[in-house]
Amino acid sequence: MGRVTSRRKVVQTRWDGARRTLVDTLAVEEPLEIRGGGEVMNVTMRTPGADFDLVAGWLVGEGLVRRVGDLVSMSYCPGLDDSGRQTYNVIEVVLADDRESGRAPRTTFASSACGICGAASLESVRVASPYDVAADGLEIDGVLLAALPDRLRAAQVVFDHTGGLHAAGLFTSDGDLLCVREDVGRHNAVDKVIGWALREGLLPLRGHVLQVSGRASFELVQKAAVAGIPVLSAVSAPSSLAAELAEEAGLTLAGFVRGGGFNLYSRPERVPARDRLCVSEPRGT
Amino acid sequence: MGRVTSRRKVVQTRWDGARRTLVDTLAVEEPLEIRGGGEVMNVTMRTPGADFDLVAGWLVGEGLVRRVGDLVSMSYCPGLDDSGRQTYNVIEVVLADDRESGRAPRTTFASSACGICGAASLESVRVASPYDVAADGLEIDGVLLAALPDRLRAAQVVFDHTGGLHAAGLFTSDGDLLCVREDVGRHNAVDKVIGWALREGLLPLRGHVLQVSGRASFELVQKAAVAGIPVLSAVSAPSSLAAELAEEAGLTLAGFVRGGGFNLYSRPERVPARDRLCVSEPRGT
Repeated sequence: MGRVTSRRKVVQTRWDGARRTLVDTLAVEEPLEIRGGGEVMNVTMRTPGADFDLVAGWLVGEGLVRRVGDLVSMSYCPGLDDSGRQTYNVIEVVLADDRESGRAPRTTFASSACGICGAASLESVRVASPYDVAADGLEIDGVLLAALPDRLRAAQVVFDHTGGLHAAGLFTSDGDLLCVREDVGRHNAVDKVIGWALREGLLPLRGHVLQVSGRASFELVQKAAVAGIPVLSAVSAPSSLAAELAEEAGLTLAGFVRGGGFNLYSRPERVPARDRLCVSEPRGT
Repeated sequence: MGRVTSRRKVVQTRWDGARRTLVDTLAVEEPLEIRGGGEVMNVTMRTPGADFDLVAGWLVGEGLVRRVGDLVSMSYCPGLDDSGRQTYNVIEVVLADDRESGRAPRTTFASSACGICGAASLESVRVASPYDVAADGLEIDGVLLAALPDRLRAAQVVFDHTGGLHAAGLFTSDGDLLCVREDVGRHNAVDKVIGWALREGLLPLRGHVLQVSGRASFELVQKAAVAGIPVLSAVSAPSSLAAELAEEAGLTLAGFVRGGGFNLYSRPERVPARDRLCVSEPRGT
């Protein structure tokens, strides 16, 4: 696992009063500073790993990068800790735009659960999608949609060790998992997936489904829309603004997606009705 | 519930294929802009309600306010929506410091799950606590600690309707719940509780316990430490940096706190060992 998890002594106390000291595995949270043109663009609290995907995806979500050619280079800057080791916590990016315009990007900060930082007015919270998501003709089978969270969970590597990581997974309309990424911040997991897709030359992600492990907030819907994804599926509840933005962007938002069913908050026609989702009633529904 | 929840048509699909359109209740997520001296200090995605508590608590967490006298006034600015109604989404603050120094506070943005935005370098992520949390002599009984999540859950009003809100609760060492706040952003729920305490003249919160409904990140530990809280208890996993900061600040960090027990990641001596936490083994442990 390397720097993705760290081990720490913990005093475990159980219901019967039994108490023991054991070594627990925690999800690592560390700051990542993104620099452009020598200026700090963003500091995000993230789980190390797939850092270049994270940076690329964050740039897509901010509307600064649309295709892989917009991103000239990404490299770790020398940043040493107290013992003189490279921290791998600073990445310098060169954008094609920067070379042309010489402009300094705005500075933002994101905690481990924050993705749309830096937009310092109500109007600037929104990033317009360059793609016509509403026109995406994707249809996805309800049985397949209901099964995505289990497929995502099965592909999560780090969660089993720590119980503390969000995940995002990119699926084809046939339910094939193309990419899964984990992070202490759910927006980071989504950025890593979208950044991977950018670097693979797959943007816009027409006909794809993004499955996330938690709730659906405004920012996750926005990130999906900006990457051209027509269906966002969340294991838990969406917020009001997530549903409103999904409606406005023409994106299908599914919430409470579990083996037993799901709710569709916008554009339900992409998931045609069918007789049964399961052969028998799933447990816990 | 007013603006805390909103109702929306949703297509519900169940395991047996049954499909119906019903009206679902969603947790509201809206931007709140905090202004000081006419400048934008922060934009956070939050659930409306207890907005003044939220602003006050955010200012405490940023190290800008320590006591109620540091905060001269908070007021809603006129901000009208398309139909000409007041949005209640902009709050102007006057700090005692501002009157003296005339300085403009830095500008930040926070999504619904982000609380320490604006600090645009690795070094400035940390806000030092003005209180000696390490010296806090609080002891809390393990039985009581294990019961806090259920007490918090019982006091949550909005979660039952939406399934989509984080909560934070401030408890005395005897387990009495002083204040509970809910929000789509967990950092906002914590800010609302700490802002309430500031406005009640209760800071620093020596001898108190902060219980949160989800995971424990670096930023939540920092907010607790800056408010002088010696024990942070989380229902789910902490991150590595949360545990490290808790250790450094002398704060007791409890994770996976459920009826069946808990893990102590730092300063375990505040929770003395005892024979049993429960009379019989709880379900699901």
